[in-house]
Amino acid sequence: MALRGVLRLGEVAIRVLDMDSARKHYVDHMGLIEVMADDSERKIYCKAWDEHDHHSIVLREADEAGLDYFAFKVFNDQVLVDLEARISAYGIEVSRIDAGVYPKSGRRIEFNLPSGHRMQLYAEKEQIGNTLGTRNPGVIPDEGVVRGLCINRLDHCLLGGPNIDESAKLFREVFDFDLSERIEDEESRDSLALFLSCSTKPHDIAFVIQPEPGRFHHVSFLLESPTDVIHAADMIGKHRIPVDVGPNRHGVTRGNTIYFFDPSGNRNEVFSGGYVHYPDTPTLTWDTSQMGPAQFSQDNIPRESFLTVVT
Amino acid sequence: MALRGVLRLGEVAIRVLDMDSARKHYVDHMGLIEVMADDSERKIYCKAWDEHDHHSIVLREADEAGLDYFAFKVFNDQVLVDLEARISAYGIEVSRIDAGVYPKSGRRIEFNLPSGHRMQLYAEKEQIGNTLGTRNPGVIPDEGVVRGLCINRLDHCLLGGPNIDESAKLFREVFDFDLSERIEDEESRDSLALFLSCSTKPHDIAFVIQPEPGRFHHVSFLLESPTDVIHAADMIGKHRIPVDVGPNRHGVTRGNTIYFFDPSGNRNEVFSGGYVHYPDTPTLTWDTSQMGPAQFSQDNIPRESFLTVVT
Amino acid sequence: MALRGVLRLGEVAIRVLDMDSARKHYVDHMGLIEVMADDSERKIYCKAWDEHDHHSIVLREADEAGLDYFAFKVFNDQVLVDLEARISAYGIEVSRIDAGVYPKSGRRIEFNLPSGHRMQLYAEKEQIGNTLGTRNPGVIPDEGVVRGLCINRLDHCLLGGPNIDESAKLFREVFDFDLSERIEDEESRDSLALFLSCSTKPHDIAFVIQPEPGRFHHVSFLLESPTDVIHAADMIGKHRIPVDVGPNRHGVTRGNTIYFFDPSGNRNEVFSGGYVHYPDTPTLTWDTSQMGPAQFSQDNIPRESFLTVVT
Amino acid sequence: MALRGVLRLGEVAIRVLDMDSARKHYVDHMGLIEVMADDSERKIYCKAWDEHDHHSIVLREADEAGLDYFAFKVFNDQVLVDLEARISAYGIEVSRIDAGVYPKSGRRIEFNLPSGHRMQLYAEKEQIGNTLGTRNPGVIPDEGVVRGLCINRLDHCLLGGPNIDESAKLFREVFDFDLSERIEDEESRDSLALFLSCSTKPHDIAFVIQPEPGRFHHVSFLLESPTDVIHAADMIGKHRIPVDVGPNRHGVTRGNTIYFFDPSGNRNEVFSGGYVHYPDTPTLTWDTSQMGPAQFSQDNIPRESFLTVVT
Repeated sequence: MALRGVLRLGEVAIRVLDMDSARKHYVDHMGLIEVMADDSERKIYCKAWDEHDHHSIVLREADEAGLDYFAFKVFNDQVLVDLEARISAYGIEVSRIDAGVYPKSGRRIEFNLPSGHRMQLYAEKEQIGNTLGTRNPGVIPDEGVVRGLCINRLDHCLLGGPNIDESAKLFREVFDFDLSERIEDEESRDSLALFLSCSTKPHDIAFVIQPEPGRFHHVSFLLESPTDVIHAADMIGKHRIPVDVGPNRHGVTRGNTIYFFDPSGNRNEVFSGGYVHYPDTPTLTWDTSQMGPAQFSQDNIPRESFLTVVT
Repeated sequence: MALRGVLRLGEVAIRVLDMDSARKHYVDHMGLIEVMADDSERKIYCKAWDEHDHHSIVLREADEAGLDYFAFKVFNDQVLVDLEARISAYGIEVSRIDAGVYPKSGRRIEFNLPSGHRMQLYAEKEQIGNTLGTRNPGVIPDEGVVRGLCINRLDHCLLGGPNIDESAKLFREVFDFDLSERIEDEESRDSLALFLSCSTKPHDIAFVIQPEPGRFHHVSFLLESPTDVIHAADMIGKHRIPVDVGPNRHGVTRGNTIYFFDPSGNRNEVFSGGYVHYPDTPTLTWDTSQMGPAQFSQDNIPRESFLTVVT
Repeated sequence: MALRGVLRLGEVAIRVLDMDSARKHYVDHMGLIEVMADDSERKIYCKAWDEHDHHSIVLREADEAGLDYFAFKVFNDQVLVDLEARISAYGIEVSRIDAGVYPKSGRRIEFNLPSGHRMQLYAEKEQIGNTLGTRNPGVIPDEGVVRGLCINRLDHCLLGGPNIDESAKLFREVFDFDLSERIEDEESRDSLALFLSCSTKPHDIAFVIQPEPGRFHHVSFLLESPTDVIHAADMIGKHRIPVDVGPNRHGVTRGNTIYFFDPSGNRNEVFSGGYVHYPDTPTLTWDTSQMGPAQFSQDNIPRESFLTVVT
Repeated sequence: MALRGVLRLGEVAIRVLDMDSARKHYVDHMGLIEVMADDSERKIYCKAWDEHDHHSIVLREADEAGLDYFAFKVFNDQVLVDLEARISAYGIEVSRIDAGVYPKSGRRIEFNLPSGHRMQLYAEKEQIGNTLGTRNPGVIPDEGVVRGLCINRLDHCLLGGPNIDESAKLFREVFDFDLSERIEDEESRDSLALFLSCSTKPHDIAFVIQPEPGRFHHVSFLLESPTDVIHAADMIGKHRIPVDVGPNRHGVTRGNTIYFFDPSGNRNEVFSGGYVHYPDTPTLTWDTSQMGPAQFSQDNIPRESFLTVVT
């Protein structure tokens, strides 16, 4: 009971076209900490300062940008056992990956979502801490630990594809996520975007309708406060990072947000805030008559790019 | 799985010495919304603007200040059934309260903690919403809805008494809470304060050692940002509300905080922030050699009142 | 010595197409305080809460939007006498307006700028205070006094027209303003925009090149903090006020800003921050190769509307 | 006219008991930039990042803590000439110091205030800029330039001594400062503290009554926003810097403030905000019946140390 089962989005593996510029973006400019590099596989592993696990972002150099896979961490191995059975019973094929295949990680199970995304679950990853220690830790890391966009944590991702109702159904029925918000077509009532939570956050994962499967809308990182969003916007501007939208506030989730692009065209978000969500919080529904306020509530201007630009 | 079972602190019932001054404090000055009054029972019922349930604070006029009881909301009635069995099996006597005995509320179960506090669990309470509605809700309530200290939600309470290890054990073993932080005596290693979470918040309830059972250290309300804490401090100052400590930042939980007192001497807190907690976040331990930083990390001055003033 | 002579922009008179919608915008939504209405002249007079003088904004219903005139307050009548002589000696014709012609105001002098704007100077205006009083004033007005966009003060305006170098020369040589910043054409080095200060603010008035004389780019109001800019953006979004740009940070002046339009198409700005300027601060020069960063440094996107939309 | 004559507090020379610990405090922890050291004179020279002049703080190792002298920068040499005459005519003896005697500085004039403080005026100091340059400067310095408490500028100082009315009279009558605020004894109406402005800031210098002449209450540094005050408080706590009071808000000036001590016992302040002051803003008067709100308006608790602890 309490927060058990699926805990959080623990790892997002992103394809980038050029590792040098990707490292400059994610490490030098955004301020993620590079914890490990694997030159033979053309990968680097990064974390945000306030995460305890070894890494949360994997960048892989490839010929096409986009999402390799994403992985949620679960409470313990028993949850993995239970979920494997539930996913299979739901009719989705599950494969097993031995501990150590993914570095610093325990065993994983892997499967494909109806929306065409590769998803993994794991219960163990090496912990390296957040530099504060666990005895009389204090609250402020040394200068230099928190830098760039001052990112606290990986938070969520938004995935594009067809069959998003089916992907959401899996999260709700098998993983016990709640549907916090939904954008629908005003006339057909078809789902355009679905936001799902397994915690007190307004979303831990979301889906947006896209014609092609397996698309990547954005990966999102948590900042500590609305003023940190302003600071991030200043740094994004200083480094001439291409901005999609922001700073602004989402109607959906109420988060203060900036959308921007990595050098490969993958969309990133930094945000803070959003309301506190519980399983008994009513699902909020937006429709296409209010796409402006649903997307960006500080100017109510719907951005074409929101529904069309993905990797 | 995900966030199920025990959801949150849903109701705190506080004894006040005089209802007029209490109403002035909680409603006029703090800005809680009075949703119902029961003159015959000398009670008023209040909520914060962003809570959906009918009320979260009950004030009762009595001859002594302090805590009547506190109640956690659980996911559904099945959880109540399961928890009743688990609590009884744990050796604590549970009594049942019919739906409607507590207004707007479904049935409850009630029991006493080893630390001497009366605790309840319930699965149902009438929902009245947060004024934004659930279809194209927007993000900002009308002017006048959010006022006073601009409180978003009831968040947690800190309870004083003996046997706090035993109370914490019940929360961990029966309610599946995690021990997020702990303050211990540097020499004896005895527990002085214990902080427990059932969510991604650093605490949903906490206990502090006190010689007398059933003591009330404070009830705490969530603000949206560190600047809202500054605003709250300005309003507290304007209304000459007696301040205990603040604004400052707690070492424990990292929250930006102000402690102050209601006219009956019950301690209140408003705060924002704090880190994101998960069940796999390491427990943080502080000891008495660092009581200053553990309590108030912006000046490291331990406050005598923190451990001595309760109702 | 010290801050003497010309003090500040004290009054901006704006033409609006419809008084009802203008009042809704400036008073109901922006939160300016309507202190006086003159139905026969179809005018209303407004102030921001933290201004002591009777009013700073005059709205007049007319067939065309735009700027009627703007007026700076000077230290005392002797300054008026001196400046009248200096302006005349500079070759600009000055006319005198008796005390009382403009309500609540002492005598004024009036003249036209080379850029085609009507400017006035006055030394006296009735003071009505900021509600805090002057003895043991406290720091926080009663709830309801600060509302809407939580505007503290009228701050500056940006005027469009030809001959902006000549208008700036008058401010520098006759009024002792400093040129804080300048935008120039990268090739011709012609002035595109000029920012002038008579205080420690980065600008008290500014000019932008426009083919037609007497154009009004925007009037700007001061907020207390960057988070108040976020709050203002939320309120602007809630009231569906048309947004031009923002929230963002200006490269010029470093202010955190939002541009939006009143119902008549007059551009408004709310902002906070900006660096502290002194007469010995070097003039900052931007050129057209950096129009994005000069205008909006958080995304470096130059807005066409910045140079083309005026009233 | 406009801001001419006396511009700002440009230099404060502080005696410290030990240079190593002083450097650790002012440079390593506070984040001031050490621009020059003079080992033979046991001095270091520092500036804040957004100041253009070569330095604003001089630390000198000595046997007693306190203030050596403070210096205001004036508009140009003609102002120096004029003020020398006015000060002499006022009856205060003035001495001249040649250019170069104070490093990087033009000639100075020096005199003693009735309150026992040594004051200087100068018109020239070498400018080294704020790292942004003056052509297409951008708004954000490189990472590492703004660090520690993220101080923007030296702002003001508060001086303790007898005859503060006389010192204030000199500032008002000879330097054209305005009396922005005043604290008086409720019964005798004697001045306890006087706050004086030569700009749009609520004070550029202030005096507090003290039995001994030439006492130093604090030197104050400007931060950019209220959230930067919170950040500074976190860093002050992290470095175990002894805190006098804060964070809190002053009633006088409305600034968000923290008072703390350097290792020699000299009081420092960092603050942000405060209202915009003009020469026609009414003087605000506080009396001893409201010493709490006048000093610290977020808890209304008068601090004994405010009037007793000086160096």
